[in-house]
Amino acid sequence: MIEVVLLGTGGMLPLPERWLSSLLIRVNGAFTLFDCGEGTQIAWREAGWSFRRLAAICFSHTHADHIAGLPGLLHTVANAGRIEPIDVYGPAGTADVVNGLLTIAPALPYELRVTEFAGGERMKLPGELLGSSVAGQHELPVLAYRVDLPRSRAFLPERARQLGVPIALWQRLQRGESAEWADGKITPSQVLGPERKGLSVAYVTDTRPLPELVALATGVDLLVCEGTYGSDDEFPKAVRNQHMTFRETATIARDAGVGRLWITHFSPALLDPGAFAANAETVFAASTVGWDGLSMTLAFSER
Amino acid sequence: MIEVVLLGTGGMLPLPERWLSSLLIRVNGAFTLFDCGEGTQIAWREAGWSFRRLAAICFSHTHADHIAGLPGLLHTVANAGRIEPIDVYGPAGTADVVNGLLTIAPALPYELRVTEFAGGERMKLPGELLGSSVAGQHELPVLAYRVDLPRSRAFLPERARQLGVPIALWQRLQRGESAEWADGKITPSQVLGPERKGLSVAYVTDTRPLPELVALATGVDLLVCEGTYGSDDEFPKAVRNQHMTFRETATIARDAGVGRLWITHFSPALLDPGAFAANAETVFAASTVGWDGLSMTLAFSER
Repeated sequence: MIEVVLLGTGGMLPLPERWLSSLLIRVNGAFTLFDCGEGTQIAWREAGWSFRRLAAICFSHTHADHIAGLPGLLHTVANAGRIEPIDVYGPAGTADVVNGLLTIAPALPYELRVTEFAGGERMKLPGELLGSSVAGQHELPVLAYRVDLPRSRAFLPERARQLGVPIALWQRLQRGESAEWADGKITPSQVLGPERKGLSVAYVTDTRPLPELVALATGVDLLVCEGTYGSDDEFPKAVRNQHMTFRETATIARDAGVGRLWITHFSPALLDPGAFAANAETVFAASTVGWDGLSMTLAFSER
Repeated sequence: MIEVVLLGTGGMLPLPERWLSSLLIRVNGAFTLFDCGEGTQIAWREAGWSFRRLAAICFSHTHADHIAGLPGLLHTVANAGRIEPIDVYGPAGTADVVNGLLTIAPALPYELRVTEFAGGERMKLPGELLGSSVAGQHELPVLAYRVDLPRSRAFLPERARQLGVPIALWQRLQRGESAEWADGKITPSQVLGPERKGLSVAYVTDTRPLPELVALATGVDLLVCEGTYGSDDEFPKAVRNQHMTFRETATIARDAGVGRLWITHFSPALLDPGAFAANAETVFAASTVGWDGLSMTLAFSER
């Protein structure tokens, strides 16, 4: 199960009625946060979740509207009692920026481990999540992320009984290990069902559309992707500022065959993003123009 | 005239219903900001004032809850079109912290001039304000500030006429300069009324009470002072954490003979600060337990 909350949906600057774009996901009780602009910790508090189990932060890039909230959040996580390390991922330049911001969080009770990616790397994220990254195209280095929660194959007790496998060995087989006993031996495949689809989420912001982004998001259950401009008329501005229109965002979702699309990172000039929903929906029906606090629980779909 | 807005009243961390403690004052169209925690720019926007004429920022100290909002605010002020310099004042260590935070605001269209004070210094602030500072007592260097808007002495036209001063010289005399003409000469004192009281505001936070703070605030029209704890029972905590209770705050106001007291910088655990108003009011009647957006216009009281 993956719980997802879109903490904010704004780009460039925080507004009284719109937090900056940020995505929080929880898996097996541990949190991974994507981007942390000014005010993200307040939006997180509004979502009603505790701070202590924040274990990883993935930054798309180091523009202030995506990272300025880091020191305040780190203080609040410390106040919540965390002492375990937090992993920070981001593109080239992230370590310098994090170090700069840490001048106002000089004595945290946990370790902050910063890793810079060029795009293409994979990493383990909290709660058994597998992360991957690709480079986007923006004014400075930017990363898009995908997380996968694999699902283990089902253990088939009837099959194990037929093969005479002692019950004491079942758990080992379920974990994917082979087993031997007095009367025989067995490999996991003999008592496990077929491969099962896991759960997956992709987070893409502050980039022009790229084939690599479609590849990254292929088949995800949920794609959270920027759509800075609602109107098709702002396509030239999207090209110039290296963002996307809703139509472009939906085109990525369609081409990647995702389950659902949430659009986020609206220009401050876009006062009513929902008014442009049709520009996305005509391209990809399962599009949602996001709002602060939009949440969803992704659950394994079949037994 | 001095316009004052208490942008936020929180200490330690920003809450969904309470911005971090920050005071904005406007004099002759120019802004001076006191402290800038995470979210201050949003509170400023809620107050409905434009950003372009921010000309000075006075930091009490460099704890994150008083300074983390700086880079975001500087971006927003830049977006509002400012190109003129901004002066930044703060205690020792401010320049390092500001430089750290500027890693996410590396290319501003205006100059940021940082001056560190030890306490006791004076400075010119925007809109003909005169600023002064004293050191407080906290975990790290902290400054309290006072601003004075002097009022010129009234020009007495009847007296000038009696003395035969040509009208062409009146303006010069009003500015405080001596004047000569064919038939005589005159000093300003001969045609100016008595000294007149100006307007003044003091801003004190994150410190234990000190005699120096009483001296700083003596006779100000408005004292904005921290009261982290409402209950007298939390006096030991106030001592330990180097803050004040409402009663201590009001005692400074009373001893300094201020016109009005606004209490701010409430502990996040203080859910209903107003419930402790009596602890201040019994010591100093003109006490107000502050709230986000509390505002006041100080005007010269007599002709």
